[in-house]
Amino acid sequence: MKAQPVFTDSKELIDFINTVKFDTAGLVPAVVQDVENNEVLMVAWMNQESLRRTLESGQAWFYSRKRQALWLKGETSGNYQYVREVRLDCDGDTLLLKVDQVGVACHLGTRSCFSRLVGSSAPEKRTERIIADLYSLIKERQ
Amino acid sequence: MKAQPVFTDSKELIDFINTVKFDTAGLVPAVVQDVENNEVLMVAWMNQESLRRTLESGQAWFYSRKRQALWLKGETSGNYQYVREVRLDCDGDTLLLKVDQVGVACHLGTRSCFSRLVGSSAPEKRTERIIADLYSLIKERQ
Repeated sequence: MKAQPVFTDSKELIDFINTVKFDTAGLVPAVVQDVENNEVLMVAWMNQESLRRTLESGQAWFYSRKRQALWLKGETSGNYQYVREVRLDCDGDTLLLKVDQVGVACHLGTRSCFSRLVGSSAPEKRTERIIADLYSLIKERQ
Repeated sequence: MKAQPVFTDSKELIDFINTVKFDTAGLVPAVVQDVENNEVLMVAWMNQESLRRTLESGQAWFYSRKRQALWLKGETSGNYQYVREVRLDCDGDTLLLKVDQVGVACHLGTRSCFSRLVGSSAPEKRTERIIADLYSLIKERQ
C-alpha cells in the first residue's frame, strides 16, 4: 500500500486546517472508516499538528489525550492507516477519514474498536455477525 | 418504521450506562451510521440521560452542547433515527449507532453531515460522488 498526500498544495492545506473548529482543548474527533466496506474502525482525536501531518503524508496521525503526544497510527504495531478520503462535517468540528487499514485497527486485535455490541438482543446479533465474518473470511481465502 | 428498545431490561440498561466513560463534561461522542449502507451520517454528543432515552425508546436522543439541552433527533424536522444497533468502543468512551434514517440526517438537507470532501483531488472525487448518487437515485425510482 502507498501513502498519497491529501493536499499537494501547502497553502490549500493551511487554509483547510484554518476552517476546522478545534475544541477548547485544541482537538477534534476523527472517525476512521474502512474505505472498502465503510466499517467504522475507530474514533481518535487530532490536534492541528496531527491533522497537518495526516494531510501532508497521507497516513493517519492522532493526538493521544492520555499520553499528551502525537502518534502515527501503526508506528509500533505496523497497522498503518493510508488515508484515501477526508471529509469535514457541516459544522466543521468533526473529521471523517476513509482509510486502507493494514491489519487490524484495534489494539485488542479486532479489525474495529467497535466490536462490543450492546443491548438485550445483542447475543443473537453477535452470532449473526460471527457468521457474516466467517463467510467473508472463507470468501477471501477461496 | 418502528422504534424498538435497545434494552428491554432496565437493570441491564443501567448497568450498561455505568460502563460508559463520559468525559469531564459528562458527554460521549456518538457516531451515527446508516444501517443499510454503513454511510456515516453524523456525529453528535450524548449525556447519561440522552443515552438512557435512546436505549429505552430505540430512537436517537442527543445532548446539544450549544443549547445545553436534550434533543430528540427528528423532533422538529421529522427526520427521526430508529436505532437498530449500538456498539461501544474498546476504551468505552465512544458510541456507534446504526440507524434507519428517515429523510436526511443533515440540517443542510444532505443525507449525511459529511458531504464536504476535502483535499487537492476533491473536485474530481466530488464529481464521481454526484454520478454515484444520481445512479442510486435513478435506480431507486425505477
